[in-house]
Amino acid sequence: MELPPLHLDRNADRPLAVQLADALRAVTAGGTLRAGDRLPSTRELAATLGVSRTVTAAAYDQLLAEGWAVGRRGAGTFVVGAPAGPPAHPRPATPPPPAGRRRSGVVSLRPGTPCLEALDRAAWRRAWRAAADPAPDVGPDPVGLPAFRAAVVEHLLRHRGLAADPAQVLATGGSTAAVAELARTLPAGARVAVEEPGYQRAVAALQAAGLTVLPVPVDAAGLVVEALPPGLAAVYCTPAHQYPLGARLSAARRLALVERARTDGFLVIEDDYDGELRYDVAPLPLLAALGPDVVAHLGTTSKLLTPTLGAGWLVAPPAVRAAVLGLRDRTGMRPVRAGQRVFVAFAAHGDLARHLRRLRRELAERRAAVAAAVHAAGHLLEGDAAGAHVLVPLPDAAAERTVIDAAAARGVDLDGLARHHAGRPGRSGLVLGYAKPPRAELERGLAVARDVLALGAR
Amino acid sequence: MELPPLHLDRNADRPLAVQLADALRAVTAGGTLRAGDRLPSTRELAATLGVSRTVTAAAYDQLLAEGWAVGRRGAGTFVVGAPAGPPAHPRPATPPPPAGRRRSGVVSLRPGTPCLEALDRAAWRRAWRAAADPAPDVGPDPVGLPAFRAAVVEHLLRHRGLAADPAQVLATGGSTAAVAELARTLPAGARVAVEEPGYQRAVAALQAAGLTVLPVPVDAAGLVVEALPPGLAAVYCTPAHQYPLGARLSAARRLALVERARTDGFLVIEDDYDGELRYDVAPLPLLAALGPDVVAHLGTTSKLLTPTLGAGWLVAPPAVRAAVLGLRDRTGMRPVRAGQRVFVAFAAHGDLARHLRRLRRELAERRAAVAAAVHAAGHLLEGDAAGAHVLVPLPDAAAERTVIDAAAARGVDLDGLARHHAGRPGRSGLVLGYAKPPRAELERGLAVARDVLALGAR
Repeated sequence: MELPPLHLDRNADRPLAVQLADALRAVTAGGTLRAGDRLPSTRELAATLGVSRTVTAAAYDQLLAEGWAVGRRGAGTFVVGAPAGPPAHPRPATPPPPAGRRRSGVVSLRPGTPCLEALDRAAWRRAWRAAADPAPDVGPDPVGLPAFRAAVVEHLLRHRGLAADPAQVLATGGSTAAVAELARTLPAGARVAVEEPGYQRAVAALQAAGLTVLPVPVDAAGLVVEALPPGLAAVYCTPAHQYPLGARLSAARRLALVERARTDGFLVIEDDYDGELRYDVAPLPLLAALGPDVVAHLGTTSKLLTPTLGAGWLVAPPAVRAAVLGLRDRTGMRPVRAGQRVFVAFAAHGDLARHLRRLRRELAERRAAVAAAVHAAGHLLEGDAAGAHVLVPLPDAAAERTVIDAAAARGVDLDGLARHHAGRPGRSGLVLGYAKPPRAELERGLAVARDVLALGAR
Repeated sequence: MELPPLHLDRNADRPLAVQLADALRAVTAGGTLRAGDRLPSTRELAATLGVSRTVTAAAYDQLLAEGWAVGRRGAGTFVVGAPAGPPAHPRPATPPPPAGRRRSGVVSLRPGTPCLEALDRAAWRRAWRAAADPAPDVGPDPVGLPAFRAAVVEHLLRHRGLAADPAQVLATGGSTAAVAELARTLPAGARVAVEEPGYQRAVAALQAAGLTVLPVPVDAAGLVVEALPPGLAAVYCTPAHQYPLGARLSAARRLALVERARTDGFLVIEDDYDGELRYDVAPLPLLAALGPDVVAHLGTTSKLLTPTLGAGWLVAPPAVRAAVLGLRDRTGMRPVRAGQRVFVAFAAHGDLARHLRRLRRELAERRAAVAAAVHAAGHLLEGDAAGAHVLVPLPDAAAERTVIDAAAARGVDLDGLARHHAGRPGRSGLVLGYAKPPRAELERGLAVARDVLALGAR
């Protein structure tokens, strides 16, 4: 790599290292240096410019800290993705926060995100490394990698008590992607019951496929099965940890739902989005275990690991699987294999089982901290037997709004029941997720939540 | 890990190491040993069983070679994914073929697959390793990772001569996924022109969205723009290397198509599936460069690297991007980030640019071998200025069928034009892809192709 002439002014007030970093940024921004280009060594550049190596090393350190350059062990220093349109002026030099610290800012206590703090980074990196091997496979694969389906079967058996055959499993792009696919296999205009309040992304996917969505109430025992209307093509539900209220569907209702599905002839879509997370309570049988003939069971790596993988699974009766494969055939859509590979590698050496233990322990501790904060504010909580969020009931929509606004003013992002309704709002309260923030931020967020809830309790 | 008692018979004919491997396989198949379980060290197990360490080491080597176990440096030997339903008998011990060799079998000379032989495995592994860092991101991302969009912009500028802004780019799940999304943003029943012959997976995606597909002829200068019917909502085409005929859309037709799109008010979907591959000819401007206001440009990593990544890009006018984002919002579908991360990491240090050089060199050599074989058989070829497949015209459908059947009888899978038509078949010929097989297999395949084509030439 031949650098253009770089002009340093020894008489200027600005240190030579700063001038050099600026000059290198400018030639990068101007397009002379491009992503992937190797910079000369600090020694070579020092010799060329007639400055000490301290100057070149300091300039490189600055560029590395800013992310303009990256060092590769033994190979040198390389320019990183230059900006697309050459900006008139180089970007201001804002060094990123030191590793391990986050930008102080808004703390999110919203539900629906995984707990990255519980992830063993070394094991995670090992999995990605292993996922690169062997040679990337080719050819269409609407079903999912055999190794992925085998890993899912093992996971379901160990952690969800479901004995499935790999032939029953289809890889998906995650739960919402699977709901969207199942929706498109139902006749246009068909009636589908959903929980109210419920998971609105699933509702949106059902509606986008031209289905008629019918909200059905939820109580402390989950979906009110007796309230299901007649003439349904499908029922979408979250029995392990109702989203967002947090109830577990009772054993009696599970049996009733499967029975009703058989007599009425509808499909039950069991979204087991965080079913692996459970505290102090005995497991209940999956709907898919009670009614393998009428249940499409959906699992995902999004809450367990990260939505980055875009990998989930569908276990369903043959006719449903065939309909989904037919859709994939007609549309040419296939589940992406990159995330499947990472999941396989992560599951292979017991890392997934270890991660689940660690995740449950971490979330159980966080849950205790949440309960303490909520109780200290004079409130009760619900739905805390499973998952990674709880419900804090509030008297009405005005109280919900007041509490959320007060927290926002103090830099804490809270979620309310209002946005989880498909029909008119019913109950009010906070949907308090505790997986996302690092522990220190969680504590800060909970302190604010406690204060604003204490206000709301008055 | 406590092993159950293992019974070895010192008086049997079978070597102790073989007996031990069988016994370990049996307890794994029986479910006593499970995926992720650590086996005792060869030393410990030798002491327990009262055999020499040579015996235990040989048994472990056998299990490692078979893939029943995996060794982790410094950590020991671990059981790999046991079969799901415990089989009555352990699997027969069929050692996998040595690395680098494939099972001898059918050689595929079909188009549409990438060239894995050109991939630098070390660079590829490096990219996956890097993709694991930093912490996996969370939160919804319908647009695509910023670093991915920046890498795409860089790639388009360097290799496709298109100056795009990252804000114009949306990540997709690949070309077909993008066509399916664009199709769903058009009004049901709208008329879309496609090339005839053409890419039938795109046709299927358009039809699955309820659109009316109108085949338009293709000649040696690509899509016959003058033949486009009126009243179109969109035109789907492959200007860089028409699929499957291989023609490049002429400069005059490019201008005419963009002009026509402006006057008629239709959207041009430019599928640039293998646009990075070009031989001995000057580049032509992308449709997206000529008509950024009327063109939705699609690129993909599938032919460049591997479909495993499930990562592609869409560069389109604001209204089209907004419509796609609206669909993603309504359906909850998002492009998967795992493959985006790998692409970013692969592009970061110049590995992508190096790979492209290597890929072009490799494919150029293969193309010469293909031309030699075809010419030696007394045939001509077309569409060889770009991409990774050529057309070998044949007089009629019967000749096409004869040649394909004769090759199949000799273990070579050839593709004919017949399956690339949406309407009634027109021309006949072979669509000869040369990217997939390793070089040795390619040579074997070409020898057969030459023989059967010589037959067909008579």
